Amino acid sequence: MKIVTSKETLNNAIQVVQRAVSIRNPLPILAGIKFETLEDRVFLTATDLDIGIRCSFPAEILEQGTVVLPAKYISELVRRLPEAPVFIEADPATGSAKVQYGQSETRINGYPPEEFPEFPIPAGINTFALPGDLLKEVVRQVVFAAGNDENRPVFMGVLLEINGGELQVVATDTYRLAWRKVKLENCEELDINLIIPGKTLNELARIISSYDQKIEITVAKNQILFVADNVWLISRLIDGQFPKYKQVIPKNYDLRVRLKTKELLDAAERASLLAREGSPVIKLQVNQDMLVVSAASEAGRVHEELSVFQEGEPLQVAFNARYLGDVLKIIGTDEIMFEFTGPLSPGIIKPVGDIEYLSLLLPVRLREE
Amino acid sequence: MKIVTSKETLNNAIQVVQRAVSIRNPLPILAGIKFETLEDRVFLTATDLDIGIRCSFPAEILEQGTVVLPAKYISELVRRLPEAPVFIEADPATGSAKVQYGQSETRINGYPPEEFPEFPIPAGINTFALPGDLLKEVVRQVVFAAGNDENRPVFMGVLLEINGGELQVVATDTYRLAWRKVKLENCEELDINLIIPGKTLNELARIISSYDQKIEITVAKNQILFVADNVWLISRLIDGQFPKYKQVIPKNYDLRVRLKTKELLDAAERASLLAREGSPVIKLQVNQDMLVVSAASEAGRVHEELSVFQEGEPLQVAFNARYLGDVLKIIGTDEIMFEFTGPLSPGIIKPVGDIEYLSLLLPVRLREE
Repeated sequence: MKIVTSKETLNNAIQVVQRAVSIRNPLPILAGIKFETLEDRVFLTATDLDIGIRCSFPAEILEQGTVVLPAKYISELVRRLPEAPVFIEADPATGSAKVQYGQSETRINGYPPEEFPEFPIPAGINTFALPGDLLKEVVRQVVFAAGNDENRPVFMGVLLEINGGELQVVATDTYRLAWRKVKLENCEELDINLIIPGKTLNELARIISSYDQKIEITVAKNQILFVADNVWLISRLIDGQFPKYKQVIPKNYDLRVRLKTKELLDAAERASLLAREGSPVIKLQVNQDMLVVSAASEAGRVHEELSVFQEGEPLQVAFNARYLGDVLKIIGTDEIMFEFTGPLSPGIIKPVGDIEYLSLLLPVRLREE
Repeated sequence: MKIVTSKETLNNAIQVVQRAVSIRNPLPILAGIKFETLEDRVFLTATDLDIGIRCSFPAEILEQGTVVLPAKYISELVRRLPEAPVFIEADPATGSAKVQYGQSETRINGYPPEEFPEFPIPAGINTFALPGDLLKEVVRQVVFAAGNDENRPVFMGVLLEINGGELQVVATDTYRLAWRKVKLENCEELDINLIIPGKTLNELARIISSYDQKIEITVAKNQILFVADNVWLISRLIDGQFPKYKQVIPKNYDLRVRLKTKELLDAAERASLLAREGSPVIKLQVNQDMLVVSAASEAGRVHEELSVFQEGEPLQVAFNARYLGDVLKIIGTDEIMFEFTGPLSPGIIKPVGDIEYLSLLLPVRLREE
């Protein structure tokens, strides 16, 4: 392989694929990035066997070929290169590559390319496209509620359902849940039900940040492929049955308050400072159009008063402040509706606005004081 | 104590003194910030017994008094307060304080104020003033060369000498040295020779960043006080004899090269990537107006060529790339002079410009390859 490219092009492509590099893997070659040429483009690939990312860019190809270089060295080197043409020449005999720039050159030792795992682009059972900005927004609003317990893989995933021309996306770690529904255009014929690892969607959102267009999605057996322009993200799917989440979402409420998102977020953050360390439980009391947020610990106590619009009976309920903060940070509207059915029933947070979204929080049972 | 102030005023003062708060000290009260009133001002103080910082601000004083509050809680709370008047009322009976803002209030438990260590402002043997921006520049150019070995306290310090109307500032960890000389105006009568902890000067530089004026310095037995506007920084001095550094600085050179600071910095950083981990040794070879920077390890090798102006004989010498990078990052001129007297003698880096500054680097002995 012999190519000429620019520092910026190369650096951007490395930054994209590097997220899939696996540093602490028993298979050392997974710490590498595979460079390969095809016609007039260079393809970079990295994978940790759960996720694979490939990114291509046009370059001057002087000789076709392949080389696998340690991500750590090639990325740090390229980041520090001068803004000048970069010439990379692989030596198939040793698996190393020479990087030339200005009057200088670096030789980086590589891995045998034939040992790099395959990156099979699945032949699609179902292929469809979603707008990149929509996907990004949905991921941001839902994925935080996914769990991280490796023994319960289904809860580490995000349910993506498309049918009847509607997309529904849900995640839950069993303590909280986030749900979003969006009408899709020209998708009436699709019928899809997948559990995608939360990590995959986070990486997807990161990739989309620089590619503001349609994302093409291909679903195959146990795998999903996202294509955004010149970037491919492939991931395994999570096997299993997503919990029947609809039955845990209360249909009605006894009390509903409408309030300013930022006021509750700030009050919850201040209150959690003086909640017990480790489990930041804060108490909400609604009465006479007033929401009192309070917490107490050995360090002191907080009593915050917020004006709200109240519909329904007074109530007292406690939540984990961190979980409450997670929702309020991403909900994206100035005001929210907070619905309650009792001190031991889930609270439901909805944006005041047009989007179909809700987040559910299980309450914390308070000891009598 | 009862005071009314603004979130911003209070937050700024807490940020300044918080640097001296000691979190992991056997004396728990050192994790606190002392609030006390005097006439129409509030004084905040924190100390780890090595350094003390005090900051004052004007406020509406409704009742004089004192309270010591845990820095962690009061700083995090104030940072999150709304932009509104803040009312703080201490309860002398419990040592706690009530913080009120808007419709809300927080009570933070404190420490007994009488247990907070004294913060004696030394009666000056010598008092003089230096421009804040000069002090800041000098600290930045010198303090990085100080050591961090607690068993050799003198090398953790920075020598500050004033005599004959000149200020000289020096630090060395025995592997490298940085020296700066500045002519002072109206200081002919001063004769000062102090070793100030590097940490103290770093904190001083941070404080100066927001106070661009004369810094008043008072030297007492074993202590030094810096006053910048409404901030007092007091520190112990280091006892001992600073090494006779002048005799290690070569008077002449066999080879001198003039080159672009950034080119050498970038080349050194790239080369250190492929130097052996843990000890990033890079080799410099000068010949025919060319400086070759090189390094090699199991990961690969680097060969960088830089055009230089060469005066003197060809030479090969090796340095620790990190130490070289430290100097090049702070030297502040586009070009430097690099002087050598042999492969086992110190290299001297000087700015090309008007300032009297040098940094000395001990070479690394290379095994023959």
